Parts: sequence; C-alpha cells; structure tokens
Amino acid sequence: MEILKAGILVIGDEILSGRTHDTNSNFIAKKLNDSGISLEEIKVIKDQKTVIIKNIKSFKNKYNYVFTTGGIGPTHDDITAESISEALNLRYCFHDEAYRILENYYPKGEFNIGRKKMAKMPENAELIVNPMTVAPGFIIENIYVLPGVPEIMQKMFINVLQKIKTGTPKKTLTINTNLYESTISVDLEKIQKKYTECNIGSYPFFNYIKKTGGVNIVVSSWTLDDLSVISKEIENMISLLGGKSLIV
Amino acid sequence: MEILKAGILVIGDEILSGRTHDTNSNFIAKKLNDSGISLEEIKVIKDQKTVIIKNIKSFKNKYNYVFTTGGIGPTHDDITAESISEALNLRYCFHDEAYRILENYYPKGEFNIGRKKMAKMPENAELIVNPMTVAPGFIIENIYVLPGVPEIMQKMFINVLQKIKTGTPKKTLTINTNLYESTISVDLEKIQKKYTECNIGSYPFFNYIKKTGGVNIVVSSWTLDDLSVISKEIENMISLLGGKSLIV
Repeated sequence: MEILKAGILVIGDEILSGRTHDTNSNFIAKKLNDSGISLEEIKVIKDQKTVIIKNIKSFKNKYNYVFTTGGIGPTHDDITAESISEALNLRYCFHDEAYRILENYYPKGEFNIGRKKMAKMPENAELIVNPMTVAPGFIIENIYVLPGVPEIMQKMFINVLQKIKTGTPKKTLTINTNLYESTISVDLEKIQKKYTECNIGSYPFFNYIKKTGGVNIVVSSWTLDDLSVISKEIENMISLLGGKSLIV
Repeated sequence: MEILKAGILVIGDEILSGRTHDTNSNFIAKKLNDSGISLEEIKVIKDQKTVIIKNIKSFKNKYNYVFTTGGIGPTHDDITAESISEALNLRYCFHDEAYRILENYYPKGEFNIGRKKMAKMPENAELIVNPMTVAPGFIIENIYVLPGVPEIMQKMFINVLQKIKTGTPKKTLTINTNLYESTISVDLEKIQKKYTECNIGSYPFFNYIKKTGGVNIVVSSWTLDDLSVISKEIENMISLLGGKSLIV
C-alpha cells in the first residue's frame, strides 16, 4: 500500500522569536490526517533565502506534497516565492493572471511595486485563488505555497485539498482510561508487539487541580480494517489492572 | 559578537497527526528570545528511532543548545532517551539518582518495568528535576531533554534556563500602523536597505468583522543599542503616507 506523504515548511522569523504562535501547521496536520495523507515532518525556518532554498530542495524530493506557509506578502521580508524559484531553477516573474487580479483589485494608480510583487512567482506556477484578500498562493511541481495569515491560509488550503490526490484515512481509535501510563506500560507494550500492523500511542493527561490523570491510548493503522480486536484486548487489560476504559 | 543558537526538536506522532497542538515550542521560543538565544529552527518529528537519531546528530553540531520535548514517558512509544543514547554512542542505562527518586515515589512493590524505564538515559547524563510528576528529564552534551506535557515541560525548562549561558536579548521595537502592508512596502524596504544592522519584519493583521487591518512593523537588532532613529524614520514614513502609528 502506497501512502502519500507530506511535509510542512513554516516560513517566518516571527514564529521562531515566539512573537507569533503558529496554528497553521496544526490545522493542516488535522486535515491531512483526515485525508489519508501522512504528515512526516513540520519545520519552522527563518526568512532567509539560503535556508528556504535548502529546505525546499530537500522536502520536494522526500515528500509527495510540500506545503509552505508565510512569506508571500508585499514586503521586503517576503521572500518565499523568489527563494522557491531559485530552488527550482525557474525564472521568478509576473504571473499574468495574478497580475490582472491584483491590478483590478487596487484603485487606479495604486498598483505599486509592493503590490505587483505579489504577482511574482516561479514561471508556470498555477494559482491558488485567495477568496479573502486577493493576493494568490501558487502551486509549482509538488509545492503548495500558502500565506501565513491563518484565516486566509485555511480557506486556501481547503480549496487545495479538494483538488489533490488523497488517500484512505488511517484507521484510528482512542481508548481513554483513568489508569496512569506507568501502570499500563508493560502490558500495553505486549499488545503493541503482538499487533505489528498498528501503532499504539499513549498520551497521558493530568488535572492538576483535581489531582487526577489518565491516558488516552490511540490505536491507528494504515492497513487494518478493523481495530476492534485490539481495542477489546486493551480494554480487557485495563479492566484486569483495575481501571476503567471508554472508547472516545 | 557571538550569538548563542538553539534548535528545538518536538518529538511525537500526535503532533504530526494534528491530535495534539504543540504549544511547547512557542513557550520555549519566547523564553529563548527574552534570554538572547537565537532560535534557528523548530522541527516536529516522528516517534521513530532512525529519525530521532539523524536529527539529534545534525542539531547537536549545528546549535549551542538543542531542546527536545516528548517521548520520555514509561510506554513503548517513548523512545527519545534510547534514541539519543544511540545517536551519541553512549550506553543507555539506569541513572542512579533518577532510579532512587522514582523508587521512593512509587508505593512498595509498584516500581514496575515501565516506571523503571523512566530512570534510563544515556550514561553520565545530568538530571533535570521534575517538580510535578517526579520522572526527570536530562542533559547530555548540549542536548536538553524535556517531557511533552506542557505544564511539566514549562517548569523544567525555566529551571534549565536559569543554569545555562544566555545572551543579551535582541533589541526589539514594534510599530503598529493602520496602513496596509502593500501601502508601506516600497518605503519600508528603503529603510531596511539603509539600516543593515537591523531586521525589519512586517506582520499584517486583519479584522474581518470590522473590515479593518494594519501592520505591526518589528525592528530588531543584535548589535544596535538604540533603535529610535530607525523607528522615527518609520513613523515619519507612515505619516507621509497618511497613516497613524503607535509604538507598542
């Protein structure tokens, strides 16, 4: 079974300085997961040409889909489109349709150099229409270039997702228990070792006020159609250890 | 001027599936920024030994500090400590003090294999004490290994930060304006080109309900002591373009 793989490049100094909390990668991650595309890596990098070029080159060869966010606005620090052109050895030039869309949008005489810049991208790029603030994103090879502003990025990403090849979502099942991770770890590992076609993840949670806690056990598989045998075994284990379980 | 550099490795399938929204890297990013340590890269990677090993090797050579979050619990999917041992060619073994701390914490007879696992780390690691749930993190070479649960990670990271060499924070100043990015982009670039010792970042914001928007212009520098000349020039530019500005 061939699994489609993706990587996200979050481009922006403001994320690395902590000024902006990136929410785009979590949004994209969830949607990819629901679409049966395996997100392999998220990387937050600087607004620096050499860094962007290096990462674009590496990601485009590793993954079926590369999604970038940020750095496609009108200012001097928006260098994503230019850097991607260079990474792909493509001319960085005006996209006719993007130019027309932007020219029509701004009042006559106000289509300045900064605004024109948003129509520049690698030659032969395909536009990703921006239904909110006009300035488009673009697709070149397997790279999907999206803006950083979350509300706009989300709308554009959803449009992209409707057009690309997706897969069958990973089958997933979550079992919640009031037992601690360290109580179940030995037995849970035995179950994981028995069922190699699934991944069993264990995610503790704590309520510091109530002084309680527990674990969400996530069973997931790309290949199995039915996880109920495994979940029954886990529920049984929890019960034998004196805990409660709930499929959530 | 030597600038201390850091990288963050967020280890966990649950971030890549979108199930968990990583807040740890933003927390660390802010604190590093305030401490004059330049965060160069954040990478979210899978719970996979080969992937962890490869990234640890690369990060530890690139940065003064490597911070990892996640994967140090008691379950089979917690493989950070073992993977780091392997990456550094160090024995993965019980840490005496960690063993004692954990042994004392659990009721007699309940210090099981999973719990004991949390005392295993690369040989000669130094503990990072966990004031909340006992299981420690550790320091080995320039790698700081922290848990994934945010409340615990935060407390442990703050303790770490008090012990490591920090720098002089990057001088930063933010100017807010009601003008759009595309209005100021040309003139802002001229100012950036004039002052090469600072970075000028431009971050648009939109209020979709009020249909208004503007930009936060962030001027930052590692070397300049005074940014007021630059900020005056930016304020002046905004005023000439008919906008309002406010240093925030």
